[in-house]
Amino acid sequence: MPGYEPADPNFESRVRSSFDRQEVNRTIGARLVKVAPGEVHIELPVRHDLTQQHGYIHAGITTTVVDSACGYAALTLMPEPMEVLTIEYKVNFLSPARGEKILAIGKVVKPGRTVTVCSGEAWAYGGGGRKQVAAMQATMIAAGR
Amino acid sequence: MPGYEPADPNFESRVRSSFDRQEVNRTIGARLVKVAPGEVHIELPVRHDLTQQHGYIHAGITTTVVDSACGYAALTLMPEPMEVLTIEYKVNFLSPARGEKILAIGKVVKPGRTVTVCSGEAWAYGGGGRKQVAAMQATMIAAGR
Amino acid sequence: MPGYEPADPNFESRVRSSFDRQEVNRTIGARLVKVAPGEVHIELPVRHDLTQQHGYIHAGITTTVVDSACGYAALTLMPEPMEVLTIEYKVNFLSPARGEKILAIGKVVKPGRTVTVCSGEAWAYGGGGRKQVAAMQATMIAAGR
Amino acid sequence: MPGYEPADPNFESRVRSSFDRQEVNRTIGARLVKVAPGEVHIELPVRHDLTQQHGYIHAGITTTVVDSACGYAALTLMPEPMEVLTIEYKVNFLSPARGEKILAIGKVVKPGRTVTVCSGEAWAYGGGGRKQVAAMQATMIAAGR
Repeated sequence: MPGYEPADPNFESRVRSSFDRQEVNRTIGARLVKVAPGEVHIELPVRHDLTQQHGYIHAGITTTVVDSACGYAALTLMPEPMEVLTIEYKVNFLSPARGEKILAIGKVVKPGRTVTVCSGEAWAYGGGGRKQVAAMQATMIAAGR
Repeated sequence: MPGYEPADPNFESRVRSSFDRQEVNRTIGARLVKVAPGEVHIELPVRHDLTQQHGYIHAGITTTVVDSACGYAALTLMPEPMEVLTIEYKVNFLSPARGEKILAIGKVVKPGRTVTVCSGEAWAYGGGGRKQVAAMQATMIAAGR
Repeated sequence: MPGYEPADPNFESRVRSSFDRQEVNRTIGARLVKVAPGEVHIELPVRHDLTQQHGYIHAGITTTVVDSACGYAALTLMPEPMEVLTIEYKVNFLSPARGEKILAIGKVVKPGRTVTVCSGEAWAYGGGGRKQVAAMQATMIAAGR
Repeated sequence: MPGYEPADPNFESRVRSSFDRQEVNRTIGARLVKVAPGEVHIELPVRHDLTQQHGYIHAGITTTVVDSACGYAALTLMPEPMEVLTIEYKVNFLSPARGEKILAIGKVVKPGRTVTVCSGEAWAYGGGGRKQVAAMQATMIAAGR
């Protein structure tokens, strides 16, 4: 990944403030753990109330945090006062999302004035190791506030 | 859509029992409202604790119910004792998910012994009308229990 | 599908003229067979020089005609002098692409000033019947000439 | 990417022989330039007869070579006598495919007995530099011959 130069020096506070306004993050326990130009990390605890029928985190909940990580990675490179919207994403599920926590990583692959393409990953941590559980390819759009 | 013939006459109770074991459905308030051969509907209330930064339902939460609708649509056509797993999906977001409730519709496009392809939609109901908010294309796999 | 109202009454000649400038269509033998508001059909002969290792039309060639059908379906609803570009697509392959000809159908699911979402299908005709071989979900963008 | 151990020591000759049976490769001028465990590279000349309306390589033709690169990357890790089929892929288009040649790179992200997930890229070379033109995420399946 190239080193990206943010258009807005306050990119981190814009991302943190937007993340805080996402009520769903409180509901599922998602926490923002890294905000860098073109890259954002979000952590999610593996909680029983977020599981599907086999006791793993539901694919849609994993998607929720990887989507946010990708969207905010795109937002780090957008000038004020633009906001970010998800146009679409595609996710492959590679392993069961179980263990202690999920780490979602979003990275910008190709920034653009209107359209930004991102790549996302989710990793399950547990038992001293980690395993990739999901891979996302996403398209984000910059929208005026 | 062709009329599908379920391999297992008890397809509905298998789907309902699996849906009930998904803890996440209680957490977000998702309800199973239709189970037919090759087609499943799930309803989600528009609740403040499921929103993103603009006050709409988060894309990942909409995805959660459309994924479940598609997965269970696939399961209606699978013989006992097979279970369904999501290999991957792709979702386009068409309009803000707001209003009173979201209806997720999952339909089988192509059933298969191993791989089943589904098509999903989410509709937002409010103010007396409805609007499509998401379109999914998903690949499901049959897995031995 | 709702009935769409084209912004440009000359939509058909714009689509036909753009299709004619696509050299690849001559190379693979693709023919434009229907241009309606929000819907375009393209035919492809099943030719030996377009096949993969099992003798079926290569997935990428099927994709080529479904992509064009979706892109031109989007273009039918765009005002002059906008042109259409493919941002991304996702394709599921449902059955081998063999027989006598492939019919690619592109339809607009959600038109937009900037972003248009389309749905595409490919059908293989042969032996008096037809079978769906591919399903596409695509995102198109309007670009100034 | 981890170092993968091929199940079949003759993986390269199986890939080369399958690639040679793909007639479409002769038609478009695609050449296999690297076959390693879990990674395959294919080159395509930028030829006028493969272009869309703006004179760039058509998205579907770029897709054709990235799909083959991903499929054969998956095949390098499959045991004899399995063959590979594309279940589905998603491609984002990042820049115009123009210049002198296109290099398609396919890599295995997650190998599996039945399902293998791959990641693909296409790069356009020209004027002494290179630019990424496409990013693919693909799902391949192992099929008995």
